[in-house]
Amino acid sequence: MDRNARNIPAALAELKALFGDRLSTSLAVREQHGVGFSYHKARPADAVLFALSTEDVQQAVRICAQYRTPIIPYGTGTSMEGHLAALKGGVCIDVSRMNKILAVHADDMDAVVEPGVTREALNSFIRDTGLFFSIDPGADASIGGMASTRASGTNAVRYGTMREVVMALKVVTANGELMSVGNRARKSSTGYDLTRLFVGSEGTLGMLTEITVKLYPQPQCTASAVCAFATLEGAVNTVIQTIQTGIPAARLELLDEFSIRATNQHSRMSLKVAPTLFIEFHGSDAGVKEQAASVQVIAEENGGSHFEWSLLQEERTRLWKARHESGWAAREMRPGAMNWSTDACVPISRLTENILAARVDLDTASIPGRIVGHVGDGNFHVTYLILPDSEVELAEAERLAARVVERAIESGGTASGEHGIGYGKIKHMRREHGASVELMRAIKQALDPDDIMNPGKILPP
Amino acid sequence: MDRNARNIPAALAELKALFGDRLSTSLAVREQHGVGFSYHKARPADAVLFALSTEDVQQAVRICAQYRTPIIPYGTGTSMEGHLAALKGGVCIDVSRMNKILAVHADDMDAVVEPGVTREALNSFIRDTGLFFSIDPGADASIGGMASTRASGTNAVRYGTMREVVMALKVVTANGELMSVGNRARKSSTGYDLTRLFVGSEGTLGMLTEITVKLYPQPQCTASAVCAFATLEGAVNTVIQTIQTGIPAARLELLDEFSIRATNQHSRMSLKVAPTLFIEFHGSDAGVKEQAASVQVIAEENGGSHFEWSLLQEERTRLWKARHESGWAAREMRPGAMNWSTDACVPISRLTENILAARVDLDTASIPGRIVGHVGDGNFHVTYLILPDSEVELAEAERLAARVVERAIESGGTASGEHGIGYGKIKHMRREHGASVELMRAIKQALDPDDIMNPGKILPP
Repeated sequence: MDRNARNIPAALAELKALFGDRLSTSLAVREQHGVGFSYHKARPADAVLFALSTEDVQQAVRICAQYRTPIIPYGTGTSMEGHLAALKGGVCIDVSRMNKILAVHADDMDAVVEPGVTREALNSFIRDTGLFFSIDPGADASIGGMASTRASGTNAVRYGTMREVVMALKVVTANGELMSVGNRARKSSTGYDLTRLFVGSEGTLGMLTEITVKLYPQPQCTASAVCAFATLEGAVNTVIQTIQTGIPAARLELLDEFSIRATNQHSRMSLKVAPTLFIEFHGSDAGVKEQAASVQVIAEENGGSHFEWSLLQEERTRLWKARHESGWAAREMRPGAMNWSTDACVPISRLTENILAARVDLDTASIPGRIVGHVGDGNFHVTYLILPDSEVELAEAERLAARVVERAIESGGTASGEHGIGYGKIKHMRREHGASVELMRAIKQALDPDDIMNPGKILPP
Repeated sequence: MDRNARNIPAALAELKALFGDRLSTSLAVREQHGVGFSYHKARPADAVLFALSTEDVQQAVRICAQYRTPIIPYGTGTSMEGHLAALKGGVCIDVSRMNKILAVHADDMDAVVEPGVTREALNSFIRDTGLFFSIDPGADASIGGMASTRASGTNAVRYGTMREVVMALKVVTANGELMSVGNRARKSSTGYDLTRLFVGSEGTLGMLTEITVKLYPQPQCTASAVCAFATLEGAVNTVIQTIQTGIPAARLELLDEFSIRATNQHSRMSLKVAPTLFIEFHGSDAGVKEQAASVQVIAEENGGSHFEWSLLQEERTRLWKARHESGWAAREMRPGAMNWSTDACVPISRLTENILAARVDLDTASIPGRIVGHVGDGNFHVTYLILPDSEVELAEAERLAARVVERAIESGGTASGEHGIGYGKIKHMRREHGASVELMRAIKQALDPDDIMNPGKILPP
């Protein structure tokens, strides 16, 4: 037998024999697994395997490797850039049922989880330990998926992204071997940082079957604040000055006027319709008060008004629920429309001009849209509201989004702060990374010579 | 000509023709460049090149690549694990004269430096910006060297290590190409994390010629504290509880009784001779007071006494100077002896047992030694005082150090928190990393197929 020939039907037959009903070829299942939370069209795999264990993943990868059959890992399906598309067919391996929390080391402030554990499930489980898992991308994503796309979200300005939070991994490599990388020490200088190499590799170098993540102490006191601004600049400059002063705000979120209007309607709030910051402070009782007072001064110097802060849990929950639902809220502003989202991240000194340019583009475009952002990190999102069947509007969204990304790269920033590349942003890889794309390709070639791990993602052809 | 034949003399001749006096073959220069701050014997290269620019490095690497001549990068020569040894001969490329600070982006809180810039030079240069470079390994090391060994030091518990602080790099790869990796945005999810791959790669994948590092705001207020403990356990448990409570101490340093005795003598201090913590707090005036008060309570519950804290700059400077000189101080406790140092890092719940076991080993050994540590990270150092010409004592130090490392790995930790592997710890790589050493080797092979970049380091044969 020619080991190197691609033979997907043969792989499916062996997988079926081994896994029975846990291998689904139903169109509905395949389609649901071939699309994320994004504008990308479904590109279903030939079959979906529901893995229950690391051994399942290893066996499946070995069979796929034998027949050079592509593997597409699947967690909760909340990805944004087409990571789940089976561009070359193959088998989607769904790890959502691998959802055991394997260990919580409260003294060491870490946890070991299977990849299908979601961030909310982990946080519920550990609530009594006084610790929390800090990465919050909005969606209740799987921790395997979050590690694979180097996710971050609202808390990253204070607690870091998956890059900082993942300590160790178990990975099934392209030949079906199981590798342990990293360890549970807080730092290490023993060889190449394989943990960071797999984090953000979008399943193109191996499949994560176990993830060790840092946890943080639940803050003694948490306060939220809302502040409206006369201008977008004023809001963004408040964030820049807050960061530069060293105030350790836990969340610094911008919503533009359009988003506030949508949020008022969707979440039945009565916020002043203006560019607005949602802020959260973590610390001691006195520390939180001090942080809030300092930010209020900075905000007022930048045209902020209506600075309201609160220690009430209900108030905070309401605020962050509204923030997380702002995407749905925006969609309601144009009945029948869908969200077409992009994100970019820039050095903070370039944030104002990048956001304003995106806003000007929107104001002169044929489609509506909104801007929100984890602006403490220089990360912002632009969402275009387009009609699903309009080629013209799709082209317009693509044109505007490309301008957002190009400006970010020209500003010394990056094509994506947290959504990843998938195949949606593959066209920007060379512009951002230049010749070092070839280093990435050399690594891919070294670790997955037959290109079976999520092919067609990250690396431009 | 056979491109693949190793021909060091031919490389030297071409380098000499190109660089003239900047290529030195003097034995004294070569020997000085072939050893670090460690017990390893000098293994001089065949020549030392003093590079002045990225172009110099590129030209030199191209010539070395043509003749398969090994390249050993050199910054300030403060490495601990034999990174500078020319195990297979070749050319040492000294970048200490590449010491320009290329840009300081105060608004973005980052700086771009050449690899020969030392941490103290950078901190002097940026003092007026209100920012500081946080990584402090004790020695005034070069930032290129610190990036290459993933250095950290006393501040890492609060501000992270070089892993967290390096944002972008320019790298000359093994074929002499110049690559830019990373960017100046605070986060990114666009492809493989090449920045983190090069950080800690000890010159085995390429030579760093430009490093972009994060800076932090100088704290509004800084306080230091010293506290003596009845037992080592009490000191370590104080640190553990401080971390678990979420108190953001900036430095949490342990010195054992032996170290305090040495420090009293060397630095003319009159500290109580007992296991002692040196602590530093950063924050607002009120925040620092609150942190100090909280830690004092924890310390007293753990048998701490003589808790003294101070806001005075002179007091702090004296304390941290004494801490940084504690290695020299230890050496004076045994006239004629040299320091043989190791470090390891463990999950913090395992720190007490690991430190106590190392102390018991020392107490029953034929050679004296001391333990200090960046214990907030679970990182500790054991230094053995041995007579330079005693094979017996060298063997004893090696035996004891191996036990430290083996216990650390068994505890879920790592063979080195911050010194790196070089060739000194290469024997522990498989024990710690298992099969994933082969992933590292595949990456090395992909990026440096002729094995010319610092050969014999990190990867076991």
